[in-house]
Amino acid sequence: MNAVGTHLLVEFQACNAETLNDLKGLRTALISAAEEVGATVIGDTFHQFSPHGVTGVVAIAESHLCIHTWPEYAYAAVDIFTCGDSLTPHLAVERIADYLESTDHQVTEIRRGPRSPVATKAAVTAQA
Amino acid sequence: MNAVGTHLLVEFQACNAETLNDLKGLRTALISAAEEVGATVIGDTFHQFSPHGVTGVVAIAESHLCIHTWPEYAYAAVDIFTCGDSLTPHLAVERIADYLESTDHQVTEIRRGPRSPVATKAAVTAQA
Repeated sequence: MNAVGTHLLVEFQACNAETLNDLKGLRTALISAAEEVGATVIGDTFHQFSPHGVTGVVAIAESHLCIHTWPEYAYAAVDIFTCGDSLTPHLAVERIADYLESTDHQVTEIRRGPRSPVATKAAVTAQA
Repeated sequence: MNAVGTHLLVEFQACNAETLNDLKGLRTALISAAEEVGATVIGDTFHQFSPHGVTGVVAIAESHLCIHTWPEYAYAAVDIFTCGDSLTPHLAVERIADYLESTDHQVTEIRRGPRSPVATKAAVTAQA
């Protein structure tokens, strides 16, 4: 497979509900996590829902990070797609888990790229 | 499983390379596809790479659409995450396939949500 990169889909459970509803804090956390793993942020857009919940997408030169939060479930869906092999997206998962105070998260890792019959999938369950 | 929504990861192969390098056209196509499936666009950010390639992320009230293109491989990585069951994200896949003139694409479908031990995965290979 001619892999372009790694896409991590992360289900963050048992998070701090207030943190999940704080747009400014989430934006800072996602951008910091991106930068810490060596990504170059090239744009972002975040939105606060009423009565609660935040959506944020961060474009990076190496693809993207996205977050969608459901404070009522103490849950956030995050995905981190990094092309190339020079970045360490799993480190971003750890940083975001710490920020959200998530005690339980599951990672699904998918290798993406051209001319792959179906993306290779590997599921990893992590207990923080 | 307490599903929040459906995340489609699509590998578009054998696309029109010029289309893959046209930021303005890709932005219009993604936003149109989002609106056609009933999503509400709440923000977007697109970036043109040199010498070629485009990254775009579109935040919707129901989650997001992202595209990353590699004209040199005639390839685009797209993902469409829609929460709830009222939208029809597979229709967006078809619209984007038509726009990219992709003759071959693979879809990986992942159900996402809180308290799922690992996201349910179903791979679908489509030959346009």
